[in-house]
Amino acid sequence: MKWPSHGSNPRYLYEAMGLSLPKEYVDFSANINPLGPPPLLKEKWMAFYQDIHVYPDPFASGLKERIAKKEQILDESILIGNGGAELIALVARRFSGKRVVIIQPTFSEYEKNCRVNQCEIVYHTLEEPEFELNVAELQSSLIGADALFICNPNNPTGIQYPAASIHAIIEACKEQNCSVVLDEAFYDFLIDYHSFLPYINQYSNLIIIRSMTKMFAIPGIRLGYLVAEPSVIEQLSELQSHWSTNTIALLTGELCLQEELFIKETQDYIFHERERLLNFFQKQNFVVTPSDVNFYLLRDPYIFDQFELFEFLLHNGMIPRHTFNFPGLEGKWLRFAIKSSKENDRLLEVFTKWRKHHPLSS
Amino acid sequence: MKWPSHGSNPRYLYEAMGLSLPKEYVDFSANINPLGPPPLLKEKWMAFYQDIHVYPDPFASGLKERIAKKEQILDESILIGNGGAELIALVARRFSGKRVVIIQPTFSEYEKNCRVNQCEIVYHTLEEPEFELNVAELQSSLIGADALFICNPNNPTGIQYPAASIHAIIEACKEQNCSVVLDEAFYDFLIDYHSFLPYINQYSNLIIIRSMTKMFAIPGIRLGYLVAEPSVIEQLSELQSHWSTNTIALLTGELCLQEELFIKETQDYIFHERERLLNFFQKQNFVVTPSDVNFYLLRDPYIFDQFELFEFLLHNGMIPRHTFNFPGLEGKWLRFAIKSSKENDRLLEVFTKWRKHHPLSS
Repeated sequence: MKWPSHGSNPRYLYEAMGLSLPKEYVDFSANINPLGPPPLLKEKWMAFYQDIHVYPDPFASGLKERIAKKEQILDESILIGNGGAELIALVARRFSGKRVVIIQPTFSEYEKNCRVNQCEIVYHTLEEPEFELNVAELQSSLIGADALFICNPNNPTGIQYPAASIHAIIEACKEQNCSVVLDEAFYDFLIDYHSFLPYINQYSNLIIIRSMTKMFAIPGIRLGYLVAEPSVIEQLSELQSHWSTNTIALLTGELCLQEELFIKETQDYIFHERERLLNFFQKQNFVVTPSDVNFYLLRDPYIFDQFELFEFLLHNGMIPRHTFNFPGLEGKWLRFAIKSSKENDRLLEVFTKWRKHHPLSS
Repeated sequence: MKWPSHGSNPRYLYEAMGLSLPKEYVDFSANINPLGPPPLLKEKWMAFYQDIHVYPDPFASGLKERIAKKEQILDESILIGNGGAELIALVARRFSGKRVVIIQPTFSEYEKNCRVNQCEIVYHTLEEPEFELNVAELQSSLIGADALFICNPNNPTGIQYPAASIHAIIEACKEQNCSVVLDEAFYDFLIDYHSFLPYINQYSNLIIIRSMTKMFAIPGIRLGYLVAEPSVIEQLSELQSHWSTNTIALLTGELCLQEELFIKETQDYIFHERERLLNFFQKQNFVVTPSDVNFYLLRDPYIFDQFELFEFLLHNGMIPRHTFNFPGLEGKWLRFAIKSSKENDRLLEVFTKWRKHHPLSS
């Protein structure tokens, strides 16, 4: 079976499974803010229309300035991109033919883009079900490496690595002239996050990628940014195609950056829903990762392969993210986004039904 | 002086010139449909908002199907892109380190992207003021070449090359295993265009790039497509970053493809405005290229360098496209988009004023 490489667009999943997409379904396969985009965006949407007939600012100056101000960094340290995926693709080109270490399981775009660029790929696979990051063990994987890809908090586990570990890794990598690509796509779902942006002045080997599509629920628009020292930004922007980030994305980004309260509300909402969900799953004897963000991995320990559960969920219109193409998971887990209370309730109902037919004693 | 590499975003031009952007100006530097986007797009714009919270279809199936049906080609022969610029960047990667011929003067992105990919670049420069394409002469430039970039109708001259010449070039290139990258960004402004899309089945060396942002006045949204034989499409799509074309672009593209009447109205509008403008310029003894599309090159033959005229226009809030970075033009011409009648009238008023102070006898 050829599995879709990502969540969202569930019709491709149902097609691959040979099933027809039910009329009613809830898509838990995309890790997007369940509150939707900030309400102000809808109000401004019609005004944005006025700007589609001019080219986007190819330097994205307005958005860069706002990020620089908010994050207390230089404009020259920022590259705006057509979603995190474009920025990952650009960074991977930088390491063409080089040796890169990828901490698995993680977001599949790192590997995909490194393969396209003929990188030599080394997996450093974390052990389930804790997926703990041991710095000393990682260091031995890093020997001779030119770059390390690390996602924090990690997708698909939802686990946040300790700041001290990240710091130690950046330091160790610097000593051996190895770049660290730190993907912080989900950092803003954390209530307390130790930001590594200030480290770019001290560590020329550090490249940080951030997405704006997850928190602001705008994956259709495509927007992300990359932070590194100015010389790295200059080199990467040479590889970027002109007018790469569209005008609507730039305007949306400028608006979203002001939405501090919306971020806070989202964090609280996710925190409470996560508590509620994880409590239920623990009581029902499912294994769940200790996620700090808006998604989590789950498995029913009473079955090895989760395919039966996966199928059951799909038949009931609940769409998790399969993990067949995550090295280190190979289908033994399912990933779920935290959606609205109502949608999460529906999920729990379906899980209750599942447990009824697959009791703990089975 | 560091000139902006493209038209549009005039504040960068005024900045480079050390001038302040006037309150009122008309931007003739971007070759966009003066009628603006199709009116239906504004009506649908609010409905598009509903789709920003889901990821774009990474295969752009809906839009591909419509293009395939309209152009009578296979879905598998189409690659949807984040504007023509992304498609040019992808194609240039295909010829990394290879020898490419660029017919100059032309759109600067071919050269820029070929340089980024360490191509060996050969100019085949057409002679002003006719900019005629001589196939025999071009053939001698093509010896040992791996790819040819040709823009038809050409940007910045607005000149359409004879279909027989294009055909002869594709044929000659095929014989020597040279790819032809035919950029048809402005083809839909021509009343009669000999389409080369059907040739892709016969010529595996042919790659056609089309933009949807010019005719439909949506450069802020970014949308284009590339047509070639399926194996080429597959290789190029491997290099493309995931979710590269945003949802709004996909929805807009599907809507625009139905706008046959709008295209016809635009073609007529441009035809009449162009006649009127070129008549005026000829009477006033300016040299103008025999454009077939929505822009043209112009020079005042009584001055060698057009800088004085350029400055005069900018001071009067009329913004042409400078040609300092077009090899083969080097600032000796200015490019103007054909805008609305009212805007064109204002341009002619300013030119009348210029001619008054720079009479034919000077």
